[in-house]
Amino acid sequence: MIFIGEKINGTRKLIQQAVLDRNAAYITEVAKAQADAGADYLDINAGTSPDRETEDMLWLIDTVQGAVETPLCIDSSSPKTLTAALERVNKTPMVNSVNADPARLGSFLPLIKSRNCAVIALAMDESKSGMPKDNAERQANIERIFKATRAAGISDGSVFVDPLIMAVATDQTAGVQTLEVIRWIRATYAEAHITGGFSNISFGLPNRALVNRTFLSLAIAFGADAAVIDPCSVTIIESLKATDMLLGKDRFCRRYTVAAKEGFVKK
Amino acid sequence: MIFIGEKINGTRKLIQQAVLDRNAAYITEVAKAQADAGADYLDINAGTSPDRETEDMLWLIDTVQGAVETPLCIDSSSPKTLTAALERVNKTPMVNSVNADPARLGSFLPLIKSRNCAVIALAMDESKSGMPKDNAERQANIERIFKATRAAGISDGSVFVDPLIMAVATDQTAGVQTLEVIRWIRATYAEAHITGGFSNISFGLPNRALVNRTFLSLAIAFGADAAVIDPCSVTIIESLKATDMLLGKDRFCRRYTVAAKEGFVKK
Repeated sequence: MIFIGEKINGTRKLIQQAVLDRNAAYITEVAKAQADAGADYLDINAGTSPDRETEDMLWLIDTVQGAVETPLCIDSSSPKTLTAALERVNKTPMVNSVNADPARLGSFLPLIKSRNCAVIALAMDESKSGMPKDNAERQANIERIFKATRAAGISDGSVFVDPLIMAVATDQTAGVQTLEVIRWIRATYAEAHITGGFSNISFGLPNRALVNRTFLSLAIAFGADAAVIDPCSVTIIESLKATDMLLGKDRFCRRYTVAAKEGFVKK
Repeated sequence: MIFIGEKINGTRKLIQQAVLDRNAAYITEVAKAQADAGADYLDINAGTSPDRETEDMLWLIDTVQGAVETPLCIDSSSPKTLTAALERVNKTPMVNSVNADPARLGSFLPLIKSRNCAVIALAMDESKSGMPKDNAERQANIERIFKATRAAGISDGSVFVDPLIMAVATDQTAGVQTLEVIRWIRATYAEAHITGGFSNISFGLPNRALVNRTFLSLAIAFGADAAVIDPCSVTIIESLKATDMLLGKDRFCRRYTVAAKEGFVKK
């Protein structure tokens, strides 16, 4: 599993305030906690208005890079911000995200290719809401994206497909649809990674942590191998370690056993 | 999901002592707890020596039937005990179990057919250990069993196949093998139920409840629809409710939401 730490996201109030206040101590703390917990990438989203996003993103990058060695996942929809961010990072980052919108693909893919980055690809399109209404639309969007990434010379193994996960509370078939499209992606693009905002599934339900851990486990069994999550969440991490072991990916159950001894998340 | 409450089993010390002491109060308490928690069947295993098993089984049946309305699952390998038990029950029970042993099939199937019972079918054979060494043996045993049940006029829908689940701590592939054979059973015998002693998977590991809940969730996603479990375990039940919902089997997420409100297991 590849973990992308989700916590440094300016759409969260505490993070946005820390960005506006240039509160480096708080950002450093959140970065270190995720890095210590074993995140493979740290998502970095300034979440501020377009006129100041680039400046805020660069401050975040400097702050996080000053605190941890973990590569970043540059989370922005602005080519200007992305260009500046790619100049500033000191390790090859992941880019979050492209989608099937030709304008986005046209502006982002050359940058991604030139830096040899991995990229998160959302199964949405350029229409007003962008959200796919079913798996047929998801699949069509994913096919358009791979056509573009392949044409740009980006290997399938650098693409992290996010099928766009909806809330099961508003659509009872949301879970099944996600699992089915994950199986389809795994069968169709064998080298690609499959990720997602898995916690969307539990929106509006009680005991969200239970629903999230259960769903992530099912998603992995169907072919997901990456997740944008809180790597400090014991309920998520213990479930992932158990799932990996049960799927035969943990020799002699050693990683599970060691993690269980340590309480699953390093303090 | 069909839950078979596993707790009244004489191979457990406290139950065996209660049987030997004719401690009806204790058996009644364990029966009521499982019935209140929503068990569909209560497994009844006397677990005593062959010379007294029938007598103990009949006492257990009378005691449990005096306390709850839940149908029983008669757990014995003795045709004599089974015959007596089937005379004594006041609701159609499940029978636990047959396997591919021709002697067992020959003695049990006529009784099962005459009473119209459901039956648990273990994927083992008549050899010394009986345990299948791989899925090829599991499949061969399962095929032999269905040949016999069909010949005896027992419908596939009355058969609860138990693929025999081994410990992942002793064989790293145990989880994957189980999931694969579950998928095969579901595809090959569409009407059959699939159950198992899912807690075997975690033998020898720390935090067994975590491993069990995770594995049960994966098994359901692959096609299992019944389980021999402790229906009073919150960790198991909450995981099952979440899984059912995520697999689209819970209209408007109502059963999950109500269960979450009640703490998942009725007190």
